[in-house]
Amino acid sequence: MNTDHDTIVAPATAAGGAIAVIRISGGEAFAVCDRIFRGRRPLAEADGYTVHYGTIAEGDRVIDDVLAAVFRAPHSYTGENSVEISCHGSSYIVSEILRLLIAAGGRMAQPGEFTIRAYLAGKLDLSQAEAVADMIASSSRAAHALASTQMRGGYSEELESLREKLLNLTSLLELELDFSEEDVEFADRTALRATMQRIAAEIDRLRSSFALGNAIREGVAVAIAGAPNVGKSTLLNRLLNEERAMVSEIAGTTRDVIEECANIGGVLFRFLDTAGIRPTDDRLEQMGIQRTMSSIERARIVIHMVDASTLTGPVPAPDFPLRPGQKLLTVVNKTDKAPAAWRLPEGVVGISAKHGEGIDALCDALRESVDTEALYHGDPVVSNSRHYEALSAAREALGQALDGLAHGLPTDLLSEEIRQVITHLSAITGRGAIAPDEILQNIFSKFCIGK
Amino acid sequence: MNTDHDTIVAPATAAGGAIAVIRISGGEAFAVCDRIFRGRRPLAEADGYTVHYGTIAEGDRVIDDVLAAVFRAPHSYTGENSVEISCHGSSYIVSEILRLLIAAGGRMAQPGEFTIRAYLAGKLDLSQAEAVADMIASSSRAAHALASTQMRGGYSEELESLREKLLNLTSLLELELDFSEEDVEFADRTALRATMQRIAAEIDRLRSSFALGNAIREGVAVAIAGAPNVGKSTLLNRLLNEERAMVSEIAGTTRDVIEECANIGGVLFRFLDTAGIRPTDDRLEQMGIQRTMSSIERARIVIHMVDASTLTGPVPAPDFPLRPGQKLLTVVNKTDKAPAAWRLPEGVVGISAKHGEGIDALCDALRESVDTEALYHGDPVVSNSRHYEALSAAREALGQALDGLAHGLPTDLLSEEIRQVITHLSAITGRGAIAPDEILQNIFSKFCIGK
Repeated sequence: MNTDHDTIVAPATAAGGAIAVIRISGGEAFAVCDRIFRGRRPLAEADGYTVHYGTIAEGDRVIDDVLAAVFRAPHSYTGENSVEISCHGSSYIVSEILRLLIAAGGRMAQPGEFTIRAYLAGKLDLSQAEAVADMIASSSRAAHALASTQMRGGYSEELESLREKLLNLTSLLELELDFSEEDVEFADRTALRATMQRIAAEIDRLRSSFALGNAIREGVAVAIAGAPNVGKSTLLNRLLNEERAMVSEIAGTTRDVIEECANIGGVLFRFLDTAGIRPTDDRLEQMGIQRTMSSIERARIVIHMVDASTLTGPVPAPDFPLRPGQKLLTVVNKTDKAPAAWRLPEGVVGISAKHGEGIDALCDALRESVDTEALYHGDPVVSNSRHYEALSAAREALGQALDGLAHGLPTDLLSEEIRQVITHLSAITGRGAIAPDEILQNIFSKFCIGK
Repeated sequence: MNTDHDTIVAPATAAGGAIAVIRISGGEAFAVCDRIFRGRRPLAEADGYTVHYGTIAEGDRVIDDVLAAVFRAPHSYTGENSVEISCHGSSYIVSEILRLLIAAGGRMAQPGEFTIRAYLAGKLDLSQAEAVADMIASSSRAAHALASTQMRGGYSEELESLREKLLNLTSLLELELDFSEEDVEFADRTALRATMQRIAAEIDRLRSSFALGNAIREGVAVAIAGAPNVGKSTLLNRLLNEERAMVSEIAGTTRDVIEECANIGGVLFRFLDTAGIRPTDDRLEQMGIQRTMSSIERARIVIHMVDASTLTGPVPAPDFPLRPGQKLLTVVNKTDKAPAAWRLPEGVVGISAKHGEGIDALCDALRESVDTEALYHGDPVVSNSRHYEALSAAREALGQALDGLAHGLPTDLLSEEIRQVITHLSAITGRGAIAPDEILQNIFSKFCIGK
């Protein structure tokens, strides 16, 4: 992980648009740009937050007409002098300008290097920096709300408040140590325990939000299970087509829709591939069913699909086990071919995947099975597994501290236990301690280039 | 084709980068943005060429932190009031901001609508506008030079100079008509003919540059032909791999390398798929060979590939016909397996596609068979088929005028013939006459959105 002060350059936009943006940041940003930019006057003389028209040239050869936006330290994303060059969106032009910037003294940025500089300059904490990457990757309203709350620091505030409470506890305990010969108990042990239990409950609440946060961030996993030929693929295509229709409402905005994902009511659902389940001796088919079982196990929601045209009695129970916390949705397909006397049972969604009937009701049922209230109210929801692990470590340490308290652990050791909790919580935001290089490396290597 | 004054909005960058840019242009650009942008002060009060930090929000819900660059008419790309919003590069955020801009009074732009406004505002002529699209699509140094010369108006100047000369001729002829009763000949017929012939020669030169211009713009078509198993696919993979290595020198810049194209020495070569040629009764194979023959016919360069290991005498002549203007490159593959006494004949490139030997020499030979001198000296080269057709029509009309001159056509009719030539030339740049809607439609519908 580079933490030097080189002037770094990188494309900040994907190839293929009408325009492309190249970012330059570092102490020499203006000097590097002025070696290849020809405007009315040098960028080095320009005020921050101004835009300048000019050309990028190599000797006599003009590469492109560009706009250069100037940002002066510390009023920039990185806190350093920065320039953003907008050029025509040709991959050739972008690579030529990068080549010239590098020849002029810049260096290609590592993934996330602009954001790591923003972190090192104190512009945002680690969890906020991580939210920047989530923000860029967000493809649904819910994932956006999740990243947005975290990026705006709502989550950091919550953690900071826990950390402060714990720091207060250690201060009290350490004050006791200073007066230890007088045998004073500044920290009333009953009140101490109550405070620690409240913090434990809060950490538990945050930890339990991870199941939702992770599902929202990665897409809520849904398995469509059922016997062969009940119409699983038809339903999947139907759900995906609905999505495509929604997406194309605003043309040209979303090119890379991920296969087998659908945005339903602002939540991304990820449909897992499943084969039909039936008893079989065929080895290949058995392997398919094994894969199906593993898909069902990983799913947050399982759609149990039944064919109405073959129903002779009540809807059969699913022939696969559910794990705790999984939501079962029973769906009866081909309702148009159901026996005349058949009636849809309570709590079951009836559809005709082929004719598109009942799909809206199914989408509503899927949507309702994910409770996003907390997200849209800006409540902190954990979506990052690094944070989840840190919270779990903090909770374990806190449990040990509570144990110690119950068993009359000496004040100095108790204080030390609580400091452990603080260290784990601090790792999430990186506040109160500089994060070690390897943690930074881990976090920022997942970023895209130019951010 | 819309030529209204609506405020138009569009994404200007492709999905998938660290940041995305949204363009807004039109009389109400500031008012539309100010309905959803919250900065230190409204954009309507900002100076042109300044950047403003703020948030895009819908009621209480913050969509993103953004930078908004302000451009005031007439000092903008379109000549209108314009704003460029840089947001995080998430397709969800981009589509949300577009939705809010449309709700605030904007309308989605048509492809090329920003550039058509620039044209209507007199910021660039039609051929320059077309060069903008070529500039964005350019993926090689040669294609970039071609588009760059045209965008900078070098080509328009050339055409303008021809047009002026022709206008002078008609002025002289029309002066004669004014004095027709006095039987004066202002325009000396010999000088007139000489001038018209010089113009005809210049138009011929431009027309003949189209073969190069078109090849550079679309990629120089190369057919690799030869008997089965001479190593055609191995060579193709070798050439494409070289390219991939070159492209990846600057990481993250070029994602969408087109299959079977290679940038060699700054020129894009497009390799056409060919099957091995040999006498056969198999119907499927015959169809393949037919396709090969058509590839060979379309190619600008044909590589005739021979297997050195099977050579018993001199290199055989190709067993396919060449059309005039096609370049033949004879390549002997598997030189490492050639008979011991064998020597490479003059003018033949020896390679081992498998071991990568001789590939540089082959690339040099390919590169040298395309004369790009004119391009890099900024000489006008025609690359657009619309221009080529207009030049051909102008040349035909000029031929008729020369015929008329030779046969003593009356002055008024001769002048009319020359006016026809001018009309055809004017259609290229759109100067001297407003281009009809259908022409604008044709040109700009090929643009990407946001340009």
